[in-house]
Amino acid sequence: MTKLLFKSDLDRADLWTAALQKHQPDLQVEVWPSGAAAPGGDLSAIDYALVWKPPTGVLKRLPNLKAIFSLGAGIDHIFRDPELPAGVPVVRMVERGLTAGMTEYVVMQVLFHHRRMFDYRAQQRAGVWEELPPVAAWDRRVGILGLGQLGSDAAAKLAGLRLDVAGWSRSPKEIPGVASYSGAAGLDAFLARTEILVNLLPLTDETRGILDAETFAKLPAGASLINVGRGEHLVEADLLAALESGQIDSATLDVFAREPLPGDSPFWRHERVVVTPHVASMTLPDTAAEAVVENIRRIERGEPPLNAVDRGRGY
Amino acid sequence: MTKLLFKSDLDRADLWTAALQKHQPDLQVEVWPSGAAAPGGDLSAIDYALVWKPPTGVLKRLPNLKAIFSLGAGIDHIFRDPELPAGVPVVRMVERGLTAGMTEYVVMQVLFHHRRMFDYRAQQRAGVWEELPPVAAWDRRVGILGLGQLGSDAAAKLAGLRLDVAGWSRSPKEIPGVASYSGAAGLDAFLARTEILVNLLPLTDETRGILDAETFAKLPAGASLINVGRGEHLVEADLLAALESGQIDSATLDVFAREPLPGDSPFWRHERVVVTPHVASMTLPDTAAEAVVENIRRIERGEPPLNAVDRGRGY
Repeated sequence: MTKLLFKSDLDRADLWTAALQKHQPDLQVEVWPSGAAAPGGDLSAIDYALVWKPPTGVLKRLPNLKAIFSLGAGIDHIFRDPELPAGVPVVRMVERGLTAGMTEYVVMQVLFHHRRMFDYRAQQRAGVWEELPPVAAWDRRVGILGLGQLGSDAAAKLAGLRLDVAGWSRSPKEIPGVASYSGAAGLDAFLARTEILVNLLPLTDETRGILDAETFAKLPAGASLINVGRGEHLVEADLLAALESGQIDSATLDVFAREPLPGDSPFWRHERVVVTPHVASMTLPDTAAEAVVENIRRIERGEPPLNAVDRGRGY
Repeated sequence: MTKLLFKSDLDRADLWTAALQKHQPDLQVEVWPSGAAAPGGDLSAIDYALVWKPPTGVLKRLPNLKAIFSLGAGIDHIFRDPELPAGVPVVRMVERGLTAGMTEYVVMQVLFHHRRMFDYRAQQRAGVWEELPPVAAWDRRVGILGLGQLGSDAAAKLAGLRLDVAGWSRSPKEIPGVASYSGAAGLDAFLARTEILVNLLPLTDETRGILDAETFAKLPAGASLINVGRGEHLVEADLLAALESGQIDSATLDVFAREPLPGDSPFWRHERVVVTPHVASMTLPDTAAEAVVENIRRIERGEPPLNAVDRGRGY
């Protein structure tokens, strides 16, 4: 009997249990803090953990854990635990629902900025019928920070819409129709040519605060920002100042340093900012369970799991 | 010397003249009402006309006209002229700028409805942080009315984003990943499965008023409408009633029976309606001039022009 511990304050345990057991009927799902995970339960019986923001110290109490699966694309919420057991593989969530959702959101928001919908929205409110000069797709330069699973898919779909797309990543990437910039040396040139900047970087010590005044100053004046990475990538005060000066024309923010976004945040009522509540992409239980079960089968066969985190690199 | 008459109240003659002459330096462009088109000018010297809403009777006064080119995708603005000369080919504007622009707009607006951005926008205004249940792309049914040049490209790109896309047209069409419905017999089944309806039909006597209460009632309750065809396709009062009842959840309107949209139209201030001023797609002089010059060369070689209108069919 394979046992999996499920722990999340955001996701519905019943939907996940059903989805997992649809793909692996004999999988026993224990929902924290009940079953084997209840006080006095047999923690040594738990083989796998599927978690979102696990409480500090919980995972190290599972002596026979074979893998820790993240419920989301990021894994920073797991590495926050200073007592995270060192020898257990941590696996990012890579599943087609999550990828499709992020690409939808990024494409929608890039087009929203490209097609000046902030201005058309203001015109509608004012009852103004006026055509704004169009920019051809091939003359609009979009830049994706981070070309992992999500960034690569979004970049390819944007290039398919004929936009002029570039990506920046640690090492060079080959994506048809997408110019590749890489490493610290490539960042300035990437920023200088980017009119619509999309952040899809993983959160690491190196990328924390990367969206700051210094970065904004390297973009062409009037650029747009779409942050769908993590709130901690962005220095919120710097963005407000850049919006004020016009260096940044408009922004879409789906993630924030504090979530839920506090009621007194100026972003809520900013005319040039779209705020959504961390919903750019949501893991869909059905397709995600398929990916988790596939990895459990690999591990049970003695193979390494797909999409495991490189702890040295941090993502 | 080949002479082309340019006539539009919306487009800039200087940009068009430069773009045309870039592709055909010896083309002489006469801007109505000057040059050969001026009172007393030699109208028999004009070979081609490139027009948007030509005034009644103007075209029949050009005895040696070889073709009439439309400045936009539609040609209904030309056929409004009861004195349109019968023997002269009328050519639709098919050019990559127009196609790319329409696809951008349709993809953006479909995603806007799919991702419930009307609701998230209302939540932002109210300062509400709440995740709405997501719908996977492959569970969202989008339907495109009209699979001409523009409809086919938009349908293919939406299918590429993994949405469940169908199209309806007069005769069956084969587009990879897009279900084809056709003819009067196929319309009801197409509407019954369509949650987001996009209109890209040509305006003909058969399609005028097709977006009415009867059509809306055949959609699933809470469907969305995107009208980027012509204002005359839509019965505006029926849409307002359907929005009121909830049969239509939300709409995007780029075209209207009266343009500019009158200041007292309720659409301007409707919370569930996006209004844009007929800008979904704009012919771009540079790429469009290339297409016009290509067709002039074909005609001069004795070949039929590409994208000529079938007058019997009306588009």
